[in-house]
Amino acid sequence: MSLRGENLLGTRAVRGTRAALQGVDPVSGKALLPAYGGATREQLDEACEMAWRAWAPYRELGGAAHAGLLEAIAAHIEALGEELIDRAALETALDAARLRGERARTTAQLRLFAQVAREGRHVEPRHDPALPQRAPLPRPDLRMGHMGIGPVAVFGASNFPLAFSVAGGDTASALAAGCPVVVKAHNAHPGTSELVGRAVQAAMRETGMPDGVFSLLYGADEQIGAWLVAHPRIQAVGFTGSRAGGDALTRLAAGRARPIPVFAEMSSVNPVFVFPAALRERAAGIAAGFVQSMSLGSGQFCTKPGVLFLLGDEGAREFLDCVALQLRATRTAPLLSAGIAARFRQATQEACARSSSPPLPGQVASDGTQPQVFVLDLAEFAADAAWREEMFGPAAVIVRAPRPEDIAPLLDELAGQLTATVIVDPPDHAQAAQLLRGLEPLAGRLLMNGWPTGVEVCDAMVHAGPYPACSDARFSSVGTLSIRRFLRPMCYQNMARELLPGWLREQLPPTAA
Amino acid sequence: MSLRGENLLGTRAVRGTRAALQGVDPVSGKALLPAYGGATREQLDEACEMAWRAWAPYRELGGAAHAGLLEAIAAHIEALGEELIDRAALETALDAARLRGERARTTAQLRLFAQVAREGRHVEPRHDPALPQRAPLPRPDLRMGHMGIGPVAVFGASNFPLAFSVAGGDTASALAAGCPVVVKAHNAHPGTSELVGRAVQAAMRETGMPDGVFSLLYGADEQIGAWLVAHPRIQAVGFTGSRAGGDALTRLAAGRARPIPVFAEMSSVNPVFVFPAALRERAAGIAAGFVQSMSLGSGQFCTKPGVLFLLGDEGAREFLDCVALQLRATRTAPLLSAGIAARFRQATQEACARSSSPPLPGQVASDGTQPQVFVLDLAEFAADAAWREEMFGPAAVIVRAPRPEDIAPLLDELAGQLTATVIVDPPDHAQAAQLLRGLEPLAGRLLMNGWPTGVEVCDAMVHAGPYPACSDARFSSVGTLSIRRFLRPMCYQNMARELLPGWLREQLPPTAA
Repeated sequence: MSLRGENLLGTRAVRGTRAALQGVDPVSGKALLPAYGGATREQLDEACEMAWRAWAPYRELGGAAHAGLLEAIAAHIEALGEELIDRAALETALDAARLRGERARTTAQLRLFAQVAREGRHVEPRHDPALPQRAPLPRPDLRMGHMGIGPVAVFGASNFPLAFSVAGGDTASALAAGCPVVVKAHNAHPGTSELVGRAVQAAMRETGMPDGVFSLLYGADEQIGAWLVAHPRIQAVGFTGSRAGGDALTRLAAGRARPIPVFAEMSSVNPVFVFPAALRERAAGIAAGFVQSMSLGSGQFCTKPGVLFLLGDEGAREFLDCVALQLRATRTAPLLSAGIAARFRQATQEACARSSSPPLPGQVASDGTQPQVFVLDLAEFAADAAWREEMFGPAAVIVRAPRPEDIAPLLDELAGQLTATVIVDPPDHAQAAQLLRGLEPLAGRLLMNGWPTGVEVCDAMVHAGPYPACSDARFSSVGTLSIRRFLRPMCYQNMARELLPGWLREQLPPTAA
Repeated sequence: MSLRGENLLGTRAVRGTRAALQGVDPVSGKALLPAYGGATREQLDEACEMAWRAWAPYRELGGAAHAGLLEAIAAHIEALGEELIDRAALETALDAARLRGERARTTAQLRLFAQVAREGRHVEPRHDPALPQRAPLPRPDLRMGHMGIGPVAVFGASNFPLAFSVAGGDTASALAAGCPVVVKAHNAHPGTSELVGRAVQAAMRETGMPDGVFSLLYGADEQIGAWLVAHPRIQAVGFTGSRAGGDALTRLAAGRARPIPVFAEMSSVNPVFVFPAALRERAAGIAAGFVQSMSLGSGQFCTKPGVLFLLGDEGAREFLDCVALQLRATRTAPLLSAGIAARFRQATQEACARSSSPPLPGQVASDGTQPQVFVLDLAEFAADAAWREEMFGPAAVIVRAPRPEDIAPLLDELAGQLTATVIVDPPDHAQAAQLLRGLEPLAGRLLMNGWPTGVEVCDAMVHAGPYPACSDARFSSVGTLSIRRFLRPMCYQNMARELLPGWLREQLPPTAA
């Protein structure tokens, strides 16, 4: 498929006439063809109006039709074959093996949501039958089910060009919920976005969906996103990215004449707590796991362990020596974009400037990125809030604390997190249980003896946490639970069966013939 | 029990030293004793810190303990006997029969949430067991459950001094979710609030709850509410009241260093659509039902039918004559407070000024309130957005439209609603189904052949709607579903059983002995 550089409005493709953008190869720094003309205000309006008009017929089609669309999208993404992997690798510097894995995750995710939609699990119907004889007042017949919230604006993430982008988790869960989607393509992978967008178009045509259920817009600047979130037809927003970006969209949505909810997944340092017995018994293994997890994907995962607390002395020296050794052998791939690389350099330079000692270094990558681990004592870490900010890329902080109980006063200073992890051996359990109860207010996922990178797409996953991890900890952005972001409950009182919507009627027991 | 005029901090009572407030008898206009000293900043801080400290032990206690507290609260409210009814009647001008009904609803609601907590339905546990042999990567063991979000600030409503106030639905659902509660008492019923607050204190003592699970604060001005919503220990807000109030709290919460979610239930005109066949066949009965519903509780229900569309000519004259007749016989009780009465007078005077004809009048109440129904044609209604604003009190608008299909263009202009109702006979069903699909984007509850006042507390109820009905249509504020406002999902990865929290461990199947 030759890339055309067009915005996709429903099943059509149109050239945008605002400022154009191009993908860039992060390895060579060269701009990639084609150029993507930014969508105009009129094109954006059209995408949103089409989404609105498509909403009623789309939701009325019900779960089986939604499932059919999702499965067709998965098939058409697979049909893109190596062209998709090649283009994504070129635009992101992620290696082909990782991208194939991410593609598998993306299509599995689409099929998982297809299954949810087909089974109608997300509708969660409830029924309180009428009690006409009840005193003092009869009870009416009440039926409840969950309906899509309306057209959803989705902002793709730089670090998952497939799984959190055009047809990633946000789009899959919104479509499964019965919501049309308008995607703002991420500027770091426009060609990958077009390929996936055209696969979605093909799936829409093949399954005969109402036109407008999906659109894909490009914009070189922030204007397109601001228009999108402010558009009166948009009813919810899904975003994965920086805290500044998420905060800006949340403010925009709150400032609308009719505010709408935003689910923004933003920043997290994912603290890890290594307890004394575990540290004493298996320092080297824990150190290896840590370096592997913090440098995985060049440290560009939102679940990267950014701060590790060494709770004890015995084994600490061995741990640090192993981290240093392991790190010296670590060379990460270039970062996803020049902007991310520049921000990483700035963050690590600032950390070097405020650190009392130089960081443990890794090898320098082809884009100049160098993995770094800063080692601090607890007082130094506690004294400067900057140590508790995410450094996106292969950098992390090790904090030495003499005893587990020294951590408790610090918990109030730790912001909301996607994850928190305890590394323990049985003698640590009692103290770890105490710390875990203190971590519950802070994080959405608590791990024992594992590493937070690797977010399983399943029923029990929670990828969320209190602010600034997310804008609303009551929703997950990964796993089947994430569909709730885009659903709202609807109640039907004393409603004749033929006046119920199709998506709820299909949940009812069949009537007698 | 003699009223003391104190703030309740956990199980203690302390006099506030900021500006005092007093209840007022809306019938006589006389101020009632005692005076309630406004809570100081220090007292508010203490309430919030106590709530925070109580949170961990309270949530760890689990569902049976939460249920015990809720049931004890219900029993202690009942033990207040007629003293509670008398005081509430004095402060609100609501009659004793209504207040006894509201008390029954309040205690039933507490017991319903006790049942939810005891059964643990709200935890919604999920489990994805480990798949150690899975390729390319093994799956870890993942357990999910819903935990309370943390200390909740609750703002009582003026129009339900029991069911939406100190121990109303917000408090009951928050406590059932495992969240401590800090209530800001509504200034229109301070004595009623104290009585209920002391009943909650007695229940806390009796069940041995961690001190701080509940506090009750008074404040004459808006400062106390602003402090409360901005307090770093508060993690969510429940509010029922005016749009201006809800908007202000939502903005405050969004502007915090760490923003928190607000569920505000605000304003709604609850449109009713009377279809041609129904209008033709039973105009008089529908008219009687309408006047009864719009004047019920002096029109001070958030589900009052504020706008009724007459879709057809045949029967319309009879309908209007019946409304006029019925209304002339209608005298409502004085409004809840002088402020509400003043705002009602202003709203109806403005409506008179912009209306092309005088309203149909009711009888003048002892506080000067007069029920009024304005009759407009569709063009007049469409031309001025002010007709689509809620008038809190016994006023409503009837809009004459020649045909049901004339309504469709207007739907975009109707804001979010708690309810929308169709009044139909079988020949109307096809057209009504079409309109209902157009109403789904606007409302949380759709009714057929009923009236929206009367919100059943049950599993299938949805009391919510898009803005400005609510700040977030994804949550209901009435019924068992409302507990979700104050829950967030938590995931535990590879966690040993003894490191799981008590509230989740009690959901697991028992281990082999």
